[in-house]
Amino acid sequence: MSGRSPLEHVKPAVRRIGAYTLAARQAAVKLNQNENPYELPEAIKRQVIEQMQTRPWSRYPEFDPHQLLDALAASAGWKPEGILAGNGSNELIQALFMVTVAPGTRVLVPEPTFTLYSLLTRILGGEPMPLLLGPGFQYEPDELIETSVALGATLTVVCSPNNPTGSVLAPEQVGRLCAAAPGLVVVDEAYHEFSGRSVVPLLAEHPNLVVLRTFSKAMSMAGLRVGYLLADPLLVREINKARLPYNLNFVSQAAALAALAEPAGLRRTVETLVAAREQLFRDLTRVPGVKPYPSQANFILFELEQAEPKAVFESVYKRGVLVRDVTGYPRLGRCLRVSVGSEEENASFLTALRHALEEQRFRKEE
Amino acid sequence: MSGRSPLEHVKPAVRRIGAYTLAARQAAVKLNQNENPYELPEAIKRQVIEQMQTRPWSRYPEFDPHQLLDALAASAGWKPEGILAGNGSNELIQALFMVTVAPGTRVLVPEPTFTLYSLLTRILGGEPMPLLLGPGFQYEPDELIETSVALGATLTVVCSPNNPTGSVLAPEQVGRLCAAAPGLVVVDEAYHEFSGRSVVPLLAEHPNLVVLRTFSKAMSMAGLRVGYLLADPLLVREINKARLPYNLNFVSQAAALAALAEPAGLRRTVETLVAAREQLFRDLTRVPGVKPYPSQANFILFELEQAEPKAVFESVYKRGVLVRDVTGYPRLGRCLRVSVGSEEENASFLTALRHALEEQRFRKEE
Repeated sequence: MSGRSPLEHVKPAVRRIGAYTLAARQAAVKLNQNENPYELPEAIKRQVIEQMQTRPWSRYPEFDPHQLLDALAASAGWKPEGILAGNGSNELIQALFMVTVAPGTRVLVPEPTFTLYSLLTRILGGEPMPLLLGPGFQYEPDELIETSVALGATLTVVCSPNNPTGSVLAPEQVGRLCAAAPGLVVVDEAYHEFSGRSVVPLLAEHPNLVVLRTFSKAMSMAGLRVGYLLADPLLVREINKARLPYNLNFVSQAAALAALAEPAGLRRTVETLVAAREQLFRDLTRVPGVKPYPSQANFILFELEQAEPKAVFESVYKRGVLVRDVTGYPRLGRCLRVSVGSEEENASFLTALRHALEEQRFRKEE
Repeated sequence: MSGRSPLEHVKPAVRRIGAYTLAARQAAVKLNQNENPYELPEAIKRQVIEQMQTRPWSRYPEFDPHQLLDALAASAGWKPEGILAGNGSNELIQALFMVTVAPGTRVLVPEPTFTLYSLLTRILGGEPMPLLLGPGFQYEPDELIETSVALGATLTVVCSPNNPTGSVLAPEQVGRLCAAAPGLVVVDEAYHEFSGRSVVPLLAEHPNLVVLRTFSKAMSMAGLRVGYLLADPLLVREINKARLPYNLNFVSQAAALAALAEPAGLRRTVETLVAAREQLFRDLTRVPGVKPYPSQANFILFELEQAEPKAVFESVYKRGVLVRDVTGYPRLGRCLRVSVGSEEENASFLTALRHALEEQRFRKEE
């Protein structure tokens, strides 16, 4: 192949995508990835470690993780044969897109939202069709349904609560969307525990509904990467063809199983974080020049009315608090996103934010 | 979407693929997945568990696992920016295929081989072009090169040592293939440690070469799912666009790092298994009615000259030994595959096999 570039064998749609790396930043107060500030109880961790001390590492995990699928089914209220478990929900989003998206396939994606849906669509040659959220970054159900129908969208994606805005499409509206949509409706419920609502009960009546969930947020397991997908068993059978065999390592499986067996601890953590979110929202409304958007997730999007967001981001970071710069998302050019942390972390963030805004104001006056 | 089936949104090429599940079988002697019978040293496991006791589980792994990439680079002899780590090499095969295979893309796949290459090609709408291995399931380099050129193959896959045959394409021939191939050459080195050879030294002169490796075989970590890909940094940058963020959980990363720091233990294990493979091969040649194929991997393919392979498989299993039924692969209708286990495991297998053949002979004579 002398003289030719190996890049010419990469699909043009992929070459057009910008390469992306995220510089890892350390911080005393890490509020940039919507992680859970509270760890799993020590007793759960001990169970997992005990299994690591007895179960051989040299042996593959199960081909189909039946025990975990049964536990997920019992916990979510759906059939085990309608569930797939994966290495984070990302992997299952990928499997779903691989079996449905081909060149020309239209994927309706509300914007701003999690970037993976559009990225995977483009890699597979499909056409992401962005639909801007309404005022206050709220979903507009009628417009969403009309657009899905008008486009003949093969997939209509709904991230609810939506990352990075925190907005929710009510389950009733998801039901209407499923009934009207020309294709599949994909509801990413990564943050559903913090909203107290879910569309899983709609699965029984809508065979075109696919729900995604993760253990990375409410379940405190971002480091272990576990997610799952729920849908009609016939559809799951097809998506499963693109799931890689042995995709979930045995440690993450053991941790997911142990965590599912302790729902009371999870409930308390979620209640604490929801209360902290509401407090943080109230506190942010009182910071001059800051406009927080109501959120049903474990993070809050806020707009800076005067200050320069990137400068505020850096200034807050200098004070040891890492938030998420979301200025690259459509319509979020003036916004940052902060995860809901522990009481102390949220207090540190508020102090750092006030200082940062003060600094900015001072600079402007100079 | 009332009245319509959600399956109509699944790509026809995917619907045509048969759904696949593998019934999990337990066995006292498990020689069906080419796993390593020897565990990682306890000291390595302790290191990993200590990290699990201090590192929070609720925090995402690094976006790019720099420390692991550096260690892989040092161990393999290649540049860290030319390496991707993943949740098993399967995930990186998938990422590579996602960025290169579109409808109509031709992927040359020697047969019989690992089924994932053809499966992913089909899911992505591409055309797997099978090329049968030569006599004794050996690679025929000239034919492979000619076919790759004649087809204008975007990818030419070489699994070496090949699963499930154990045959090898010599590095010199891979070099010739890279020089002549019209597209990328993908060498899956999952079993390279047992062959003592690698094509990684060819990466510097062949920017169209992609090498895949795994921690699941020689490295005794099938339960933790770690693999990596090596290629020209410019190509890696493109493949990385389809790698899911945070794809490798922190426990598996820690285990891979700890294992890489102890190469002496690995070398001893590999030497033991290579010696055991040669012994098992000699022993199999002495079993009447059995024809083993020479292997450079940690398994041996063998043909049953008279006996019915599925009956032998079940009969061996009844004696507590699980091997792999490979009769579904092209040209392997009379074959089984056995992983090289410990000395005791191999002895149990040989005894079970002799009994099974005896039983078969007896039945025929009845």
